[in-house]
Amino acid sequence: MKIKQVVLNDRPKLIQLFESITIFTPDEQEVIKELLDTYLYNPNQKDYIFFVTQEDDQAFSSFICFGPTPMTKETYDLYWVGTSPHHRRKGLAKKLIEFMMEYMRERGGSIMRIETSGQDSYNETVAFYNGLNFTEEARIKDFYKKGDDLIVYICRL
Amino acid sequence: MKIKQVVLNDRPKLIQLFESITIFTPDEQEVIKELLDTYLYNPNQKDYIFFVTQEDDQAFSSFICFGPTPMTKETYDLYWVGTSPHHRRKGLAKKLIEFMMEYMRERGGSIMRIETSGQDSYNETVAFYNGLNFTEEARIKDFYKKGDDLIVYICRL
Repeated sequence: MKIKQVVLNDRPKLIQLFESITIFTPDEQEVIKELLDTYLYNPNQKDYIFFVTQEDDQAFSSFICFGPTPMTKETYDLYWVGTSPHHRRKGLAKKLIEFMMEYMRERGGSIMRIETSGQDSYNETVAFYNGLNFTEEARIKDFYKKGDDLIVYICRL
Repeated sequence: MKIKQVVLNDRPKLIQLFESITIFTPDEQEVIKELLDTYLYNPNQKDYIFFVTQEDDQAFSSFICFGPTPMTKETYDLYWVGTSPHHRRKGLAKKLIEFMMEYMRERGGSIMRIETSGQDSYNETVAFYNGLNFTEEARIKDFYKKGDDLIVYICRL
């Protein structure tokens, strides 16, 4: 397994990976594809970067999308991370987030932000983020929809 | 004075308005122009909308940029609001925000979010938002840079 930055030729395989991750809703799939196309087709943008893990058989097993938060000095947003159902429970998402931390450190980054739904917290997400030294620093009630809060996780490097 | 939605022909006058608002830093000016061009040149995007107040002499006296927050059901982000130095203290920003509230209500919107710098809070901003029923619901320390927190204001309609 290696981590590689996504290039234009990777688009079909990456779309396939997105679509295999059925825990993403159709709305979420749309947003992720939009970000990918902004990243691939707008050479002037600096807000979104995509990396994947590529297996020995060349398959993409997981991806991450992150970028420097506009107008901040040392803050990065982790926008999306996801793993193919065939490659779960191997620590790939954790590896990609650790890769992002290293990427940030090399560029003077010190704060990583994740915005996520409170509904995600019923599954493994909270334990996962806590294990990576993220803490819940803010919560906006009913943000996504009634009964579905926004939770902001922060990791300070 | 009337409120009108921005169209492609308005671009030069709007850029002029942005540049007259010297409380925006060069970085902020860049981000605002990027959003404007996304709004004007990408007909598929639905995230950003621009309106201006136009005076009787056709000058643009203030502007607002907002949009439905992706993946939420009833939430809108107020991204930017600003007034020409020649037209301050006339309540234009307040009028534009009230216009946005009305716009939201007509579309089932119920939560307005503003993300702003803690450093803005030393001036009139806090009083301004409080007067419009915004409350500080979250604060992320050192988010913009060391000593400069992110404050999230929420208004529930």
